[in-house]
Amino acid sequence: MPETKVKKEEDFHEWYNEIVELADLCDKRYPIKGMNVWKPHGWRIMQNIDNLIREEMFSTNHKEVYFPLLIPESLFKKEEEHIEGFFQEVFWVTHAGDNELEERWLLRPTSETAMYPIFALWIRSHSDLPLKIFQIVNTFRYETKQTRAFIRVREIHFFEAHTAHVDFEDAERQIEEYKEIASRFFRKLCIPFIFNKRPEWDKFAGAYYTISMDALMPSGRTLQLGSIHQYRDNFARPYNIKYEDVNGEHKYCHQTTYGMSERILGAIVGIHGDNRGIVLPPVISPIKVVIIPIIFKGKEREVLEKCREINDRLKEAGIESHVDEREDTPGSKFYDWELKGVPLRIEIGPKELEKRTVVIARRDTGERVEVSEDNLLDEVRRLFDLISENLYRRAEEFMKNHIATVDTIEEAKNSRAYIFELPWCGEKDCALRMEEELDLKTLGEPLHVDIGDKRCAACGGRAKTFVRLAKTY
Amino acid sequence: MPETKVKKEEDFHEWYNEIVELADLCDKRYPIKGMNVWKPHGWRIMQNIDNLIREEMFSTNHKEVYFPLLIPESLFKKEEEHIEGFFQEVFWVTHAGDNELEERWLLRPTSETAMYPIFALWIRSHSDLPLKIFQIVNTFRYETKQTRAFIRVREIHFFEAHTAHVDFEDAERQIEEYKEIASRFFRKLCIPFIFNKRPEWDKFAGAYYTISMDALMPSGRTLQLGSIHQYRDNFARPYNIKYEDVNGEHKYCHQTTYGMSERILGAIVGIHGDNRGIVLPPVISPIKVVIIPIIFKGKEREVLEKCREINDRLKEAGIESHVDEREDTPGSKFYDWELKGVPLRIEIGPKELEKRTVVIARRDTGERVEVSEDNLLDEVRRLFDLISENLYRRAEEFMKNHIATVDTIEEAKNSRAYIFELPWCGEKDCALRMEEELDLKTLGEPLHVDIGDKRCAACGGRAKTFVRLAKTY
Repeated sequence: MPETKVKKEEDFHEWYNEIVELADLCDKRYPIKGMNVWKPHGWRIMQNIDNLIREEMFSTNHKEVYFPLLIPESLFKKEEEHIEGFFQEVFWVTHAGDNELEERWLLRPTSETAMYPIFALWIRSHSDLPLKIFQIVNTFRYETKQTRAFIRVREIHFFEAHTAHVDFEDAERQIEEYKEIASRFFRKLCIPFIFNKRPEWDKFAGAYYTISMDALMPSGRTLQLGSIHQYRDNFARPYNIKYEDVNGEHKYCHQTTYGMSERILGAIVGIHGDNRGIVLPPVISPIKVVIIPIIFKGKEREVLEKCREINDRLKEAGIESHVDEREDTPGSKFYDWELKGVPLRIEIGPKELEKRTVVIARRDTGERVEVSEDNLLDEVRRLFDLISENLYRRAEEFMKNHIATVDTIEEAKNSRAYIFELPWCGEKDCALRMEEELDLKTLGEPLHVDIGDKRCAACGGRAKTFVRLAKTY
Repeated sequence: MPETKVKKEEDFHEWYNEIVELADLCDKRYPIKGMNVWKPHGWRIMQNIDNLIREEMFSTNHKEVYFPLLIPESLFKKEEEHIEGFFQEVFWVTHAGDNELEERWLLRPTSETAMYPIFALWIRSHSDLPLKIFQIVNTFRYETKQTRAFIRVREIHFFEAHTAHVDFEDAERQIEEYKEIASRFFRKLCIPFIFNKRPEWDKFAGAYYTISMDALMPSGRTLQLGSIHQYRDNFARPYNIKYEDVNGEHKYCHQTTYGMSERILGAIVGIHGDNRGIVLPPVISPIKVVIIPIIFKGKEREVLEKCREINDRLKEAGIESHVDEREDTPGSKFYDWELKGVPLRIEIGPKELEKRTVVIARRDTGERVEVSEDNLLDEVRRLFDLISENLYRRAEEFMKNHIATVDTIEEAKNSRAYIFELPWCGEKDCALRMEEELDLKTLGEPLHVDIGDKRCAACGGRAKTFVRLAKTY
């Protein structure tokens, strides 16, 4: 079986770079660093991911909108922490044709400052609340660190949900809903993750608190897949987002956001892929079953007809399938579709024709089974479930095996885990000391902790919670 | 029946502005002129339009891609006519954070100059051709004229297909395919249009020739819905897009493009709408049937249950439907859904319950029919076809009644048509004279003309073709 030049287990990042190109996901030769060309296969997978998000959003009563890309500098500057957090990262439009603009406009790094002045117009009374919207758009950040396809780019394919509520408690309920959505969504993509409440010094610029979803990549580094923010009324005040309550009083809204990006695809590539290509969870694979005719002289027509018949049956059952009729060897076709991560391959030759069977090969395990034509649909669906389950379990096991809960920095140093949980008193200095001694970054606190009677691994004071640390992207 | 403040027949543009807001399509209060907020209903309609385009593209073997928004100035400047045509219309990014960029980047007004350097990498041999791709993206043009929702904006929701071919003839075949696609596509949207070969002085910057699709708006002005361009090798040369042919010779590709924008939605709003709101062709309406319970005391539960049952039946049959269960009068619900253009309204009250019937009202004609529950699905589908047919015929009749083929400028002056066809010798000066005398703009030539023995309406010389003129957006 042909394999990648670089092996995943030997040099994860080189392997990742190689596979992203071989699998027709993106082309990195565009002349602006960190702005890549989405190739057809990559873009379709991303759109399938987007549609999974849409399903979740629509079923929880969010509406899809589209706000302009460009934001006037004056609007952007209304929330102080926000501007401070983003100022060094934004691109500025200063000219149109030969004319200098009266006011500079920035390319959205995220859309709070574009949306909230309009929210102030949309929201009048408590009956307009909760307001729940989302959009899927291109955003821009001036990354100065090394770029990496899908993981660190400068034009980002971005999902952002924004909500406004009557009070803090209702916004808190929204946060709970987002946590449930994230759990369902990433389960479908077979990606295990942990929620971390980011520390005060690393929360989103302008947020009251930030919860991140972090996955563990095979490199041992965690990848932030997305985040959920409680804004309280931090934005409602500067943007004057008020409503009239049942008693006629005017009150500020409380707001939340939930953001995710193309990093999701980076996680899928990195976590599920192997040395033969990417491995796609069936739910997002543009083609779910590829059918390869195994042709020997004499039976060409019959084999091809059978392939097409099977293809029609699959399609009728709502399963995206494709017959590869190219003039090429079966072997090189196998290679092609394995690279692209298609979950199931069906092989049909004269032998199968005679027995009224097909051979089905799983992309995730390589296993091949012979199945009677009559059971085909049931078997295909069963295999999809098995693949999905296997991908998730495999990744979950890897993550669980690499999280260590320890009592001391010393213990952490001697562990081969990637993510560490240490007892923590809650002081920034103590977390920074752990970061330094372990050469890791603070992910934050687990959401629900029963710390018991433990001592901070840095200062020895009474621990209030655990702090998680890891190498990060 | 509540109606718009401004009547369509009295002041089309004011009516258009009013209806665009009332129907929840967009919000024009965003602080940058010509950059509007897409509201949920407008965005879903646009996405349904996009998906119709995708269907056409996929079924003709185009692949969907996504190229970066930002284009380095040096890339943009490779094709001289192109840069000249667009230079005054582009927005420039000059800074990132506090840093001035080494080279300015522009926001794509269209993507030739972003794509073609990459095409030069993708295309190696004749077996890579034809290359057929498309993308649906935001583009930017610095419009200085008066902006108008969907019709003249500065951030444009844009569709662009790009192809590369072995020679001019193959590119010509592509143009034929695009003409067929445009005809099928706009027929589905019930929008009649005419093809016009744009005159030399008004073709796309860099094109060998340009064919536009122009619709007639009720204002009497034509609206360019999209255009198809034959580039010959005009871009292939500066961008060095070459392939090796079967004999090992290296040749330049010939290219075409096909572009359309959110103007499609502007045409749908303007052409089909009336004083009660927009009127949507069923194929793109996010909700195709709205069900209104007509509730009187005593039968509330039964009526609501019946509504939900009918809703389930419609959904199971793949027809997007919705029961409006809000606490509001049926009348104000009717008003709401008429504004939003929902093609069919079903009313169910105690009377219908008893007879096992429903009342169906058509949005386009206002007609109401009583239908037995048993025939519901067939009737709904039949009505969709009738609505679609009626919308198209109505618009086609309007257009046909306002095109005049005349021999002289005098005749044109005395006609009440909006689009004029005059015999033309082909000289620019003559077309410009007709433009001036009639206060119209040149649309171009019809594609297939048998002019016979006619004289140019400007100079009296031998006419080679007709030239079409109209007021335009």
